[in-house]
Amino acid sequence: MKKRKILGVTGIRSEYDIMSSVFAAIQNHSQLDLELIVTGAHLSQNYGYTVQEIKKDGFKIADEIESLINSDRLSARIKGLAIQLQGMIQTVTRLQPDFLLVLGDREESISTALTGAYMNIPVAHIAGGDRVVGNVDDQVRHAVTKLAHVHFVTNQESYERILKLGEQEFRLFNTGNPGLDRLLKVPCLSRTELSERLQFEIGQDEPLILLIQHVISTETQAAYYQMKQSLEAIKKLGIKTIISYPNSDAGGQQLIKAIEEYKELPFVYAAPNIPRLEFVNLMRMAGCLLGNSSAGILEAPLLKLPVVNVGNRQKGRLHAGNVQFVPHDIEAICQAVNKALFDQSYRDQVGRCINPYGDGHAAEKIAGILAAISIDEKLLVKDITY
Amino acid sequence: MKKRKILGVTGIRSEYDIMSSVFAAIQNHSQLDLELIVTGAHLSQNYGYTVQEIKKDGFKIADEIESLINSDRLSARIKGLAIQLQGMIQTVTRLQPDFLLVLGDREESISTALTGAYMNIPVAHIAGGDRVVGNVDDQVRHAVTKLAHVHFVTNQESYERILKLGEQEFRLFNTGNPGLDRLLKVPCLSRTELSERLQFEIGQDEPLILLIQHVISTETQAAYYQMKQSLEAIKKLGIKTIISYPNSDAGGQQLIKAIEEYKELPFVYAAPNIPRLEFVNLMRMAGCLLGNSSAGILEAPLLKLPVVNVGNRQKGRLHAGNVQFVPHDIEAICQAVNKALFDQSYRDQVGRCINPYGDGHAAEKIAGILAAISIDEKLLVKDITY
Amino acid sequence: MKKRKILGVTGIRSEYDIMSSVFAAIQNHSQLDLELIVTGAHLSQNYGYTVQEIKKDGFKIADEIESLINSDRLSARIKGLAIQLQGMIQTVTRLQPDFLLVLGDREESISTALTGAYMNIPVAHIAGGDRVVGNVDDQVRHAVTKLAHVHFVTNQESYERILKLGEQEFRLFNTGNPGLDRLLKVPCLSRTELSERLQFEIGQDEPLILLIQHVISTETQAAYYQMKQSLEAIKKLGIKTIISYPNSDAGGQQLIKAIEEYKELPFVYAAPNIPRLEFVNLMRMAGCLLGNSSAGILEAPLLKLPVVNVGNRQKGRLHAGNVQFVPHDIEAICQAVNKALFDQSYRDQVGRCINPYGDGHAAEKIAGILAAISIDEKLLVKDITY
Amino acid sequence: MKKRKILGVTGIRSEYDIMSSVFAAIQNHSQLDLELIVTGAHLSQNYGYTVQEIKKDGFKIADEIESLINSDRLSARIKGLAIQLQGMIQTVTRLQPDFLLVLGDREESISTALTGAYMNIPVAHIAGGDRVVGNVDDQVRHAVTKLAHVHFVTNQESYERILKLGEQEFRLFNTGNPGLDRLLKVPCLSRTELSERLQFEIGQDEPLILLIQHVISTETQAAYYQMKQSLEAIKKLGIKTIISYPNSDAGGQQLIKAIEEYKELPFVYAAPNIPRLEFVNLMRMAGCLLGNSSAGILEAPLLKLPVVNVGNRQKGRLHAGNVQFVPHDIEAICQAVNKALFDQSYRDQVGRCINPYGDGHAAEKIAGILAAISIDEKLLVKDITY
Repeated sequence: MKKRKILGVTGIRSEYDIMSSVFAAIQNHSQLDLELIVTGAHLSQNYGYTVQEIKKDGFKIADEIESLINSDRLSARIKGLAIQLQGMIQTVTRLQPDFLLVLGDREESISTALTGAYMNIPVAHIAGGDRVVGNVDDQVRHAVTKLAHVHFVTNQESYERILKLGEQEFRLFNTGNPGLDRLLKVPCLSRTELSERLQFEIGQDEPLILLIQHVISTETQAAYYQMKQSLEAIKKLGIKTIISYPNSDAGGQQLIKAIEEYKELPFVYAAPNIPRLEFVNLMRMAGCLLGNSSAGILEAPLLKLPVVNVGNRQKGRLHAGNVQFVPHDIEAICQAVNKALFDQSYRDQVGRCINPYGDGHAAEKIAGILAAISIDEKLLVKDITY
Repeated sequence: MKKRKILGVTGIRSEYDIMSSVFAAIQNHSQLDLELIVTGAHLSQNYGYTVQEIKKDGFKIADEIESLINSDRLSARIKGLAIQLQGMIQTVTRLQPDFLLVLGDREESISTALTGAYMNIPVAHIAGGDRVVGNVDDQVRHAVTKLAHVHFVTNQESYERILKLGEQEFRLFNTGNPGLDRLLKVPCLSRTELSERLQFEIGQDEPLILLIQHVISTETQAAYYQMKQSLEAIKKLGIKTIISYPNSDAGGQQLIKAIEEYKELPFVYAAPNIPRLEFVNLMRMAGCLLGNSSAGILEAPLLKLPVVNVGNRQKGRLHAGNVQFVPHDIEAICQAVNKALFDQSYRDQVGRCINPYGDGHAAEKIAGILAAISIDEKLLVKDITY
Repeated sequence: MKKRKILGVTGIRSEYDIMSSVFAAIQNHSQLDLELIVTGAHLSQNYGYTVQEIKKDGFKIADEIESLINSDRLSARIKGLAIQLQGMIQTVTRLQPDFLLVLGDREESISTALTGAYMNIPVAHIAGGDRVVGNVDDQVRHAVTKLAHVHFVTNQESYERILKLGEQEFRLFNTGNPGLDRLLKVPCLSRTELSERLQFEIGQDEPLILLIQHVISTETQAAYYQMKQSLEAIKKLGIKTIISYPNSDAGGQQLIKAIEEYKELPFVYAAPNIPRLEFVNLMRMAGCLLGNSSAGILEAPLLKLPVVNVGNRQKGRLHAGNVQFVPHDIEAICQAVNKALFDQSYRDQVGRCINPYGDGHAAEKIAGILAAISIDEKLLVKDITY
Repeated sequence: MKKRKILGVTGIRSEYDIMSSVFAAIQNHSQLDLELIVTGAHLSQNYGYTVQEIKKDGFKIADEIESLINSDRLSARIKGLAIQLQGMIQTVTRLQPDFLLVLGDREESISTALTGAYMNIPVAHIAGGDRVVGNVDDQVRHAVTKLAHVHFVTNQESYERILKLGEQEFRLFNTGNPGLDRLLKVPCLSRTELSERLQFEIGQDEPLILLIQHVISTETQAAYYQMKQSLEAIKKLGIKTIISYPNSDAGGQQLIKAIEEYKELPFVYAAPNIPRLEFVNLMRMAGCLLGNSSAGILEAPLLKLPVVNVGNRQKGRLHAGNVQFVPHDIEAICQAVNKALFDQSYRDQVGRCINPYGDGHAAEKIAGILAAISIDEKLLVKDITY
């Protein structure tokens, strides 16, 4: 039997980190072939030129589509989307894949879903149904659900939300979040090894904060201010902190500007692109994850890592008992970080939390379904259930 | 008070025919200003170069964005979408409108919705919530609903469907279908006047068929065959028939090819672009509307015009008692057309049907709401209701 | 040794007809590999969907890039160019060819030359240096010369013109026109065979006119009128005439409209796309080639075919003694056609003309040079000689 | 009489600095109207978001076209060109200007020239005919000359080169370089004032170096190394130095990386965007301009400023007696800078040099010609003179 050709799309390191286990499971599946469209921030030096990581991982790249506009303006993201879409059509025309595969709610997700819908090629979408108010990404995520043909959701709440959105049940699969898969597989580094790799000393028993903060598209004006609050808190706390640079969204440049004002503090280490091995081990070692990264919601509970989530991003999202939500306020941030790092009864409670986002075996489930599901008119012609 | 700037988007004659009453109501509203993006088929000679009609109607054109790819391939529509989107961003960047406004489920609808969503400008969408299975347009329509900020629906069924899709009720307004507005306003022509304008004789008491048939995107392979069935039925019936050329969708060329094989029949008149005045009067005079045009569902009941709808397009859609649904079968088509034209008890029943798509005053309602609704964070930051 | 990868670009049947011998010679060369970007009119049903012909010819297609905008407006060509360019960059990024190869002065030529120049990949350009006043194509052709790294010219005049343009002599090769190569290789059909294939009777001794007329970009307003003059002349002459549809340039639609008014004349046969086999045999059989096709200048002399060239296109171009130049005037056209068909002393003189565009072996020469020339800084860094 | 509408195109600060006097002269001309397309680096925070400067200068912006791809790859520039071109067509379609106007050899120049050539709108090109080997810009500049309709050259050498390129003499005007115009008009700042504005102390009699270094497109691999040589020389010299960040070309990021390694030196001041007032006064005060900026060739002689030009950029260009050319070698750089700063007989000689690039009144000449020249077929239909 002819192998099915799966065309995955990846646009940024944070998403690739989640998807790479899925890509590997597809590549290793006897009935599937994988190629990748690599686009967006992957092709920019300013965001780590992570296409090289993808190549190192051994995946076949179908096309590299530059789409990231060098601007903070609101128009830049959607313009990048248009450029990306134009390129993607060309790749899909050439490869005529059996499935398109994409994660989440960024520009890539809707470009991919539109391409599949118009070109009559089934689209498998990972991580639909989530609800994260306060962001264009939320609208886009649900729009992608209405366009996609197969939904791999990461939790029960999202499963039920997609059902309510009128999607037919045969299209839905709760596989858990594939971002967790790799967490279990990444080799362990000692603090000494990690210190050497980062060229930044992390003492054996020293508390460690990991800070990752992104922009909210509706609050781009406040981006610089918001970042400053977190950085001031860090300065006040005086605790060793690793800062990972933000996404390339509109406003991202403002955050970077703020970070660069603090990166010379002796207990601070800021890096545009921390490799995955180092990053996962940082999560393992950190006493607290600060900011508004989705890693705090999704991955941290599997590692029993306390999270201090600032501002509106991630608010209202299904989460385990490891997250404190605080406003962009220096005091509130300091207090929550202190509790996360030093309040033993709180830390014990976090140690017992259960991850609602799955068990770390999503990738094989997804690959299996992509190989088995019938590609026929029933799959291709969508109906709403009401 | 500063007038609100409404930026409407129009891509094709069939949609412009519905929207022109809305555009006029906005233009005439004391608190609104209107500009239009004119794109797609409007700028192609092959589809009547209808941008000239828009200019004649006196609307201000913000930009003309050529986007129609000269190809029948499935990729052509989505590629046109990408091009259109890229241009639209430029216009919106320049004008910074208070609202974007678009109708329906074509490429324009999702380009507009994406532009608004990413650029933080509210999008008003007309005619969401409908359900027309068998077409990428159905997926796109619901995706647009998830992206848009205000929904002007044309009927109660759609109102309820959009509620189920998780949209907040304050965003919803059942205004009826604006396509009906102009129906009541178009001046009446006599059969003699119309005959002269078309250069095609329509006798005083002579039965008349109006044929409009479009492609279904999932059945493009069968497009030529499907058109042939309708045309063979016309040939067999031998009744005066006016054929209007189809949309510029993928496959449209196949229909045109079929039409051109029959257009020399003495009782047939085929035209790429029938002006609105003539078209509405044809609907008034016709004894039967054949094909799969949405006009049969939406406008025909207001005119008490019997419709014979062939194939899967429009199937399952809310309709009045004026429609017979038949397969792509010559015999079935002939029989249904005969009943529509000559079965007096059926025609009486059609004469009593009630239009579920409104009362012909949608445009003023839409303009009024666009002037009155608060543009604030509540409007701009969407939430799903579950 | 690793084979050199040549990436050819083709956008329309008329140009592919010239290039196919070159593509074949490259494909058959032991040290070269060939892939093709297929774009523009090749992907449109309205222009014969000639990508299928390319596939049948066995060439490897790197990407199909839809770029033809469905519009007659002046902006349509340049917009298509922008779209094509965007796609081409993606292909070149993926393939990293050793050479880009393109012919002539259409949109493809400058897209290709720009892509190579900016991406530091040598561009080989065929048929630069010609001078055809009255058309944007002329400006584009010389601009391409300034961007390209290797020039394969088709005649001595062009060789010298490119030298004057400041190009370094080591970049220049007069190979003759590859369009002539296939002329000698196309199998011969009898008039009976050809009649059957075209479904149009061509009598054994009957005089035959072949009419091909394109638009001049600076005279698009007059396109319809100009075509009408030629068609009226045909009507008046009453001689068997084969009409080939024009290019997809702005204004092309106007010519087609004119042709369709005459195509029902009993002695006229009009076709959107005549296959190459039939076309070459038509040139062999015709007594006169009418219009403004470059075939009259380039290929006709090898076949000793008299040409009547109307209007400004091709004017001032190097030509053999087989061409009469006439204005867009019915009388002048009729008189020149009659001379071409029936004036035996003129026909004898045409029979002795020598083709300044080469000997029909250009393709092998081009392939040989592409395999042998050093790809180094000398080739890549261009200098002007003054 | 209706005013002529001039549509200027500007893409980056360095070019805008030259063009602003021309834009002002057009705006002030009684028979001309000006609008500007603002694109490229002007719209990126990373390059100073200089669109704001343009607005402050009071020019009317026709459209802002984001086109700068966030990537150092070779493909990024040409992809940006394609995007820019697509947007520009839309603006030109809307405005239907009487003239397009652009400077130089960057992406904007060829986008503009192509748009005008295909849309039959005359293109006026400033600063064609120059010869700067070693860069794709050189090829592009000459290609633009072949596409443009009017040439405003900045020096006699270029005038003669364009004649040799076959351009008709009536299209040529040696106006001198408009970049010099503003030099004379910029208000003078004292060293104290300037020190305050820059927040960087420049002593009264202290020698000052100004360093501006760009990437050569054919030497992007070496960009980082080349920048390091200049910076090491600065470090060794230990003299006060102002560094201006480079263009957004491929490779630019590498230079910035190098600069950031040295910017903490106490005698170094590095800035992404120095406003024009400060910049011109820096040129007036500096004892030596180091790097490879065109300012060294064009503007420095009017100010009698010694220049040390490193590497291949600017090499072979017409220059006055104020320039020393040196390789990327620390020793050579130090020696030349010392001579420029401290060798009084050399400085006296520089003080007597004559600027071959004009007298500082180019802008009025250009505006006058744009108002007076006939726009007719002679202008629009280009011919080559051989």
